[in-house]
Amino acid sequence: MRGAARALSSATAANRPAPRARDAYSWYTSCETRWADNDVYGHLNNTVYYALIDSAVNRYLLARSALTLPVAAPASPATTSDAALGVVVSSGCVFFHSLAYPGAVDAGVRVARVGTSSVTFEVGLFGAGATTPAAQGHFTHVYVHAGSRRPVARLPAPLAAAVAALA
Amino acid sequence: MRGAARALSSATAANRPAPRARDAYSWYTSCETRWADNDVYGHLNNTVYYALIDSAVNRYLLARSALTLPVAAPASPATTSDAALGVVVSSGCVFFHSLAYPGAVDAGVRVARVGTSSVTFEVGLFGAGATTPAAQGHFTHVYVHAGSRRPVARLPAPLAAAVAALA
Amino acid sequence: MRGAARALSSATAANRPAPRARDAYSWYTSCETRWADNDVYGHLNNTVYYALIDSAVNRYLLARSALTLPVAAPASPATTSDAALGVVVSSGCVFFHSLAYPGAVDAGVRVARVGTSSVTFEVGLFGAGATTPAAQGHFTHVYVHAGSRRPVARLPAPLAAAVAALA
Amino acid sequence: MRGAARALSSATAANRPAPRARDAYSWYTSCETRWADNDVYGHLNNTVYYALIDSAVNRYLLARSALTLPVAAPASPATTSDAALGVVVSSGCVFFHSLAYPGAVDAGVRVARVGTSSVTFEVGLFGAGATTPAAQGHFTHVYVHAGSRRPVARLPAPLAAAVAALA
Repeated sequence: MRGAARALSSATAANRPAPRARDAYSWYTSCETRWADNDVYGHLNNTVYYALIDSAVNRYLLARSALTLPVAAPASPATTSDAALGVVVSSGCVFFHSLAYPGAVDAGVRVARVGTSSVTFEVGLFGAGATTPAAQGHFTHVYVHAGSRRPVARLPAPLAAAVAALA
Repeated sequence: MRGAARALSSATAANRPAPRARDAYSWYTSCETRWADNDVYGHLNNTVYYALIDSAVNRYLLARSALTLPVAAPASPATTSDAALGVVVSSGCVFFHSLAYPGAVDAGVRVARVGTSSVTFEVGLFGAGATTPAAQGHFTHVYVHAGSRRPVARLPAPLAAAVAALA
Repeated sequence: MRGAARALSSATAANRPAPRARDAYSWYTSCETRWADNDVYGHLNNTVYYALIDSAVNRYLLARSALTLPVAAPASPATTSDAALGVVVSSGCVFFHSLAYPGAVDAGVRVARVGTSSVTFEVGLFGAGATTPAAQGHFTHVYVHAGSRRPVARLPAPLAAAVAALA
Repeated sequence: MRGAARALSSATAANRPAPRARDAYSWYTSCETRWADNDVYGHLNNTVYYALIDSAVNRYLLARSALTLPVAAPASPATTSDAALGVVVSSGCVFFHSLAYPGAVDAGVRVARVGTSSVTFEVGLFGAGATTPAAQGHFTHVYVHAGSRRPVARLPAPLAAAVAALA
């Protein structure tokens, strides 16, 4: 089913988090939508929002060298047992307005909460030129030892720096 | 980033909803995973879980005639202004274990909450033969008049019946 | 399986169409890759190339008003019986080099063949700054009457103009 | 644009390969479609056909131990330099009829051609109960040394056996 209401009345929206404006986010990236993103209602399928959110957060982490793609550093049982690995433990999204192909989407990234071994990122998705978000989502990554799968005692330094730069 | 921890320690899981067992769900469907579902970590990308959850709920609604695909009844401004249309206003998922291609995923569907114009579905995703879920997610649909986009005064009868049958 | 060889020897490439350079294409668009585009080998899954090719061609047609999204002009049995509708009857792609998230992909569009009721588009996909394509694909659209599904006697005027502008 | 004509006249189909019947394929698998597979025309997006074709071939190879997922045997520069790796060098598909969510798709797999270092698989996609295919596609894999990227001198034994079993 499609990922957003085009113009939900205020009554319906009352139970949901309020939309954050563009200046609530400290880092932005942009992504073109694709034909296949639209579902039968002619709007972005709700799963596409998560793909955009995921890509935006990881693009930030890659730009800050806080995430290494496994191809560049291939994982093997011997070499990765002590490495920290981020895993998504929960995510969610509220949908305010719908987006559709064709057109670009701006994704703003912020950090909502930093724990001992976890980070919660929040992402606002805005249509080109829009001042209010079409959707805002969150992702909580927990960093674990690749071998034991137990949470790390502290965030890896490049990640901690990337997170601090967003605050 | 990948959609699940393979074996998060209990400490990490403490802040999240407890996993529901298979018998918590009253209706099941199954879906084969696809090669493209796996991301660079070799597990289902987190967006795929949402695609499976969405498909499971809609498959139930279609089976109960509580959802009509727009192709079968094409929307036009004249004919649909009074029709009720379900839109996703929020969704979320917690990830307990990872899933991977190849293999089938069982999706259990239940209703968590029914409002005047909204329904929240919960879906548990289980690997074949698994007794504990890999992930459990939820979707809240609000039903609006296709024309005005205002919430309906009561759920459409086929939907209300489909929801009641799950309770 | 992944969509491209990173550096296939010339022997292997001998049986395939030669790669066309950037100046072989008359219109370009660009698209950011997404995290979920990478498969377990860390490169764009082969189906993603088709999604980019499809999106590039349709973005061109939309920009030229040669394609109307069904949402803007919803299809109903009564109103669309005489309308021309493009359907994909065949497609294909050869893969020269692999692409990967993160990074943008430039897509060049050209027309390879125009028939009475059909158009074959060719698309070259180039990594940012690359002079040789990572892949080149084609799509053949046949235009049919929406009602009878029989091929049209001539291409719709906006489409014919869009095609002519690419030649 | 959508992946298939619903009922193209015979004139249009004349230039394309003839559809092969179900008994042309020696191995079958099945896959449920997903809500997000449908595009704005209410049928499977053409890229989805490739995802189903890719998944079917790889599911066969995995079942025959002719393909090892990189997670099970993680690639590292040291260990994989001599391993054979299959890369897709070309693919294509012709579309006869459209498919749509909901519903399962049967995928038949056959081998069209075996070379020194390459295999071309053909896959027919059939709607449930259909005797004629909705689409038929092909994939050519070239097997290269993971290190040098040069084609192997002969197909790996498990792959050769899997291919022989399909003939």
